[in-house]
Parts: sequence; C-alpha cells; structure tokens
Amino acid sequence: MTTQLPKGFRLATINAGFRQTVRPDICLAVSDFPAVTAAVFTQAAFVAAPVIVAREQVRNGRPMRAVLINTGQANACTGEEGIANCRETLRWTANACGLQATEILPASTGVIGAQMKMDLWEKAIPKLAPKLGSASVKEFADAMRTTDAFPKFSGAAIATENGTITLAGMAKGAGMICPDMATMLCVVLCDALVPLDVWQRMFREAVNVTFNRVTVDGDTSTNDTVYGLANGASGVTPEGHDLSLLRAALEKILGELAYMLVRDGEGATKVLRIAVTGAADDADAEKVARTVGHSQLVKTAMYGKDANWGRIVAAVGRSGASFQAKDVRVSLCGVELFRDEQPVAIDFDALLEEPLQGRDIAIDISLGSGGGSYTLLASDLTHAYVDCNAAYRS
Amino acid sequence: MTTQLPKGFRLATINAGFRQTVRPDICLAVSDFPAVTAAVFTQAAFVAAPVIVAREQVRNGRPMRAVLINTGQANACTGEEGIANCRETLRWTANACGLQATEILPASTGVIGAQMKMDLWEKAIPKLAPKLGSASVKEFADAMRTTDAFPKFSGAAIATENGTITLAGMAKGAGMICPDMATMLCVVLCDALVPLDVWQRMFREAVNVTFNRVTVDGDTSTNDTVYGLANGASGVTPEGHDLSLLRAALEKILGELAYMLVRDGEGATKVLRIAVTGAADDADAEKVARTVGHSQLVKTAMYGKDANWGRIVAAVGRSGASFQAKDVRVSLCGVELFRDEQPVAIDFDALLEEPLQGRDIAIDISLGSGGGSYTLLASDLTHAYVDCNAAYRS
Repeated sequence: MTTQLPKGFRLATINAGFRQTVRPDICLAVSDFPAVTAAVFTQAAFVAAPVIVAREQVRNGRPMRAVLINTGQANACTGEEGIANCRETLRWTANACGLQATEILPASTGVIGAQMKMDLWEKAIPKLAPKLGSASVKEFADAMRTTDAFPKFSGAAIATENGTITLAGMAKGAGMICPDMATMLCVVLCDALVPLDVWQRMFREAVNVTFNRVTVDGDTSTNDTVYGLANGASGVTPEGHDLSLLRAALEKILGELAYMLVRDGEGATKVLRIAVTGAADDADAEKVARTVGHSQLVKTAMYGKDANWGRIVAAVGRSGASFQAKDVRVSLCGVELFRDEQPVAIDFDALLEEPLQGRDIAIDISLGSGGGSYTLLASDLTHAYVDCNAAYRS
Repeated sequence: MTTQLPKGFRLATINAGFRQTVRPDICLAVSDFPAVTAAVFTQAAFVAAPVIVAREQVRNGRPMRAVLINTGQANACTGEEGIANCRETLRWTANACGLQATEILPASTGVIGAQMKMDLWEKAIPKLAPKLGSASVKEFADAMRTTDAFPKFSGAAIATENGTITLAGMAKGAGMICPDMATMLCVVLCDALVPLDVWQRMFREAVNVTFNRVTVDGDTSTNDTVYGLANGASGVTPEGHDLSLLRAALEKILGELAYMLVRDGEGATKVLRIAVTGAADDADAEKVARTVGHSQLVKTAMYGKDANWGRIVAAVGRSGASFQAKDVRVSLCGVELFRDEQPVAIDFDALLEEPLQGRDIAIDISLGSGGGSYTLLASDLTHAYVDCNAAYRS
C-alpha cells in the first residue's frame, strides 16, 4: 500500500483548539489545479450545514480546488446561523489560499446542535494556509480522527504507458455513535485526468459496493460525506485497461477504508462478512444481509464466540426476502451449520471453537432461489459498545 | 386486576424434567366446552413444529378444547420428526383427557434444533391430566416462564345485565434471546358466548395494537404464538355496549401483558413509549417509531439516562418517512427538546435529570405532515443484555 500523495495536491493540518486535545482538528487539502469532483452525502432527512453548503457547491459539476475538514463541532442542527458560519470559514480559507470560496468543499464532525467557535476558526486559518505542503497522507488522516482508535488511510499507484496515476484515501469514523463522533468522512485524492461523468460514475459505483455495505450499528449521521477529487496533475488520461485498473484501485481503496471503519466500530472485536447468494434478486439479498447484520442477537453471539446458527436462521426467516425455507443453507467460518431446515449433524461447536476466536468472521447464506447476491460488513455488539454509548455526553 | 379463572376452564401444570429445574415445564388448559378460537402466529419463514401443527388445527375455524404448552424444548428446526413428535404429545394428552387430538393446540419454547424428549413427555402426561383444576392463573403463568424474571398474567371481569364475563391472560417472553428462551407465548381464556368471526376479529385487532407494537431487540422467533379461546361457559352473549367493553378488556389485558414483556426484556431497565403523531399516514408513523425503537444509539442513551435528542432526531431522519425537517418536534418525558431543526434553548439536561431516572420514558415525535400515528413500546439496550446474549449457549 502506497501512502504517496498524488501529484498537484498539498495538505495541511492545525490544532484550532476545538476539542482541547493536542491533536490537530482542522485539515485542508488543496489542489493546484481545478479537480473534477464526485461527492456522496448522507441520505438522512436532517443534514448538517456543511452538507447543505457542499451539495450546492457541487450541484453543477463545477471543478473544486480544496476540501476543508474540521473535527470537534458537527455544525448540525444549527439553523441559518450554522450555514452562514460554514460559508464564512470557506471565505476565510479562500482568502488565505488565493481560491474562490465556492471551490472549497466543507465537512465537519463533532457535537451536534452547538454553533461553531468562529473566533477559533478566525485565528486558525491564517496559520493553516502557510502550512500547505507540510502534512502527509497519514498526518491528514490522523487529524480527521475523533474517537477513532487508529488513522484510516490507503492508497494505490497505477503504472500506465504514459506515466503513473496515484490515489490516496483518508477516512474517519467509528460508528454513528455519540454526538461528538457523529460522522463518517472520507476524501479520495487522485491525479488522473478523467472526464467528470466517468469519474463521478466510477466513484458512486465504488461507494455503493464499499461504504454503503458496512454497518456498525445501523445508524447514519447528519454529516456523512465522501469526496473524490481528480486533478489531472499526472497528465495521464486512463483508457481501456488503464481505466479498469483505476476503477479497481478506487474500489480497493474505498473497500479498505470501509473495512477499517467496521474494524474500528465502537467497541467492536469482530468484522462480520455476511455474504448472501442465491436470492431472488440483489434487493432480496440485501434485505437478508441487513437483517442478519443488524440483529443484536447475531452480533452479541459473534462477540460471545458462539456458533449460534439459530439466531442467524431466525434473522433470515424474518427478513422478508422470498425463498423456500427448505432451500436455505447457512455456513459460519466455512462450516455448514444449517440445511434442509435443520442443523447439520456435526459437532460444529468443536469445529468452530478456533475460527470464532479470530477477528474476521464469515457468515455465508445461500437462499437457493435465484441469482441475487449482496455482501455486508458488520461489527459485533459488545460490552464496550454499551459502555461508550450509555456514557453521558458531557 | 382480577386473576380469576373464567368459567368452564381447568388448568394444570407439571414438571416433566425438560429443564432440570424445580419449576413446572408443561402446562395444560382445558375447556369443558368447545371454544371459539383465535390464533396469531409468528410471521417468520422458519416456524416450529407446534406452529405448523396448530395452524392446521385452526384452519377451518373449528372450536378447540385445550392448549398444551411446554418450555425447555422449542421443537423448531426439527423436521418431519419434530412434527410427528408434536402430534404424538397431542394424542397422549387427548387420550388422558378424553379429547380429540385435533382440538388441542400445542405451543413450545426452548432450545431450537433438538428433538423433544419423548420419554419424559410420555411419563408426564398421564400424571398431568388428573391434576386439571388444581392450578391457578398465576401458577399457569409461572409454569410458562423460561428466563422471565416474573410471571405475566392479567385479567378482567365485565358485569353485564345477563351475568359476568371473565377473561384471563397468561404470557411468557423476555425478548427473542438465547435459543433456550426463544419465544413469546400468550393464552387468553374467556367465558363469553361470542360468534367465531366476532371473536377472531376483535382478537386480531387487539394483538395488532399490543403485541405487534412492542420490541425488545427487533428479533422475532420461530415459535411466537398468541391463542384466544372463548368457551361461552358464562352463558352471556355480549352485544352493543357489552361487546365494546369486551373488546376494550381484551385490548387492556393484551396491552398489560405486552408491557410486561418489554419491562422484562432481557437486561432492560426502561420501557420506552415511542409515540409518533402527525405522520403522512400510519405506516409512515410506524416507520419512524420502529427506527427510533430499534436504534442501538437511542436505546443505549436511554439506558445511560442521557437526554440525547441528537440520536432520536438522527433516527427520525433516516427512517424513510416523508416529512419536512422544519416541522419535526421531539419531546422526551414531556419536555420539548427539538423544533425548527434545532435544539430548544433550555437547560433540558437539568430538567430531565429526574425523569430519566424512572422506568417509563416517553418519547413523543410529531412530524407535522398529516394525521398518521403509531405507538411502540421498546426496551433499552444494556450491559446485562450483552451479558445474557454473549454468554455461550451451554
């Protein structure tokens, strides 16, 4: 995994004091050239001010020059004042960096319902701009963290006949948990020269099969945002096989970051890979995967290292997907536990004792009714999850 | 609350040794007269043998004479052998009591995937039948318990001009938790003389607004069953106002039992009453109530006595219901926390410190977009829930 910064981008981070920790809480990525931009936002009905502003910025497919991220204050449920504050931070950043405010994308994470500390912003930005070029991909990812246990970043380099294309992805998120870590944010920077429609399509497809297929606790946030900027600085226009490689690299990076989100899910000790096949269609497969992946009983059983096929089967049974009960087969860590409506007559507790100690747990469900499939990554449900989330906010 | 047994019913319980405790594990209710019967079963795709057999028994609206319940073995995922075993227990009971096997309704709860211990059944039933008339409503409910912390029963008496109608309801269930407590079972006995269609309609309606509106962990079981038998032994045919009173009494009893299920939800310390009003329609209101009631974040916040409006609002926002964000208002324990897309500017943490200590927590959500409404009872999510469910089965 390369952690090289793609050409034509500069990064900077600074501690503005939003969170009273020693870690930076603002990070800025600037492209030296206008970058074709893809953006995917939370589907929630209540969205944060930066999401409202960013949706407007990207509406007409305008190229973007920068991404400005802060932790410590989500700027969500803050009304008109919050939107005005968000725009103000973009103006300050534009002035400091010689950009237009409308070509900077904001993203925030932190406590919901409080206005941002604008005095701290005003002091920090003039100090942040001169630092551009000083931060690495890892340092940028580190500054995005809130309660994340580790920084999340990944990268890829694609050697073509015309030169090398580089990608870097940075993300934060550990479940939509307390209001002060309300968000999944991700930025992918790329120096390929790609048309807007091609980049947006491959980006959305990659998000769909990665970030949209993970769940920590089924909750989504007011601020969830994934940005992708391709600035063309490599001078390489990928076509044919190279374009496929770029698509694959993007999916790989987003997939790795999504896996890290689940692995770092609040209190998580396991990553459950729930693969449903043989469904009537993909939508049915998704229903089954999500019902299993959201089942508190399945999630606690996996935490307890319990080969509890009954809970998996019960979740499949109430998913609402269409299948014949007699055709359903369930495997755990590669051991078939259930078929013909009955548990398989083997000592699977003994067989699975070792595999269930591991971090990665495969749950394979075959419905035997068609060609639909879906795979979901889910975390387990643990004492530490309850610890974190039942603790009072203050 | 009366706990009187309706006329013309006799109850018995016995310890067959299924669970190696001192508590009885079989209970039998017999009506001296054929009783009009309503039955509501689990909607899960995988259903237990007793559900398969009982569905067949009640298919043609035949009157029933008895209900036979066992704990300790769910007889679920047991294939043809399980169905044959279930029928055999009904034959033995019929022989011992002078009934037809086809007029006895079975229900089971316990470990999934294991065949029933038929030798214990065969020994117990001849001893059980002579005990008919010896058990009270409370003792019957007590024998239905598995991991329930307390027996669940309720009753009502309706004085009419022509005599008194008596109802008694007994239930078990503490969430679809471990395989050895997999089920919600409920039996209502009534001595009114009511036509089958009237009884079945009022019973289904009462179940819909009570048992179908509670959630412990969103999981349902292979065995969930609610039976209602009305044997006419009071000689009273309720009509007009009396019929309304009967309907109300039935709803009250099922409502009380449903509340007890949530209160006894595995590890639960709270009963959340989530009332959604002003939805576009009832289905939309239900979507919101269920998204909030199933949110691990809301459930842990309530456990933590945290006036965390942000998690409630986030759940409303991702429910998929249609509304304008600006119209949504949220109250907790009667204190309005959120309106106009922002938290209300009061010190609600201080206001709510006392109310959030209590067991019953009211969450009121108004969507401002129509006349649809829905109320759901939900439990909180606690350390004890994880304790129970992460513990190994054996």
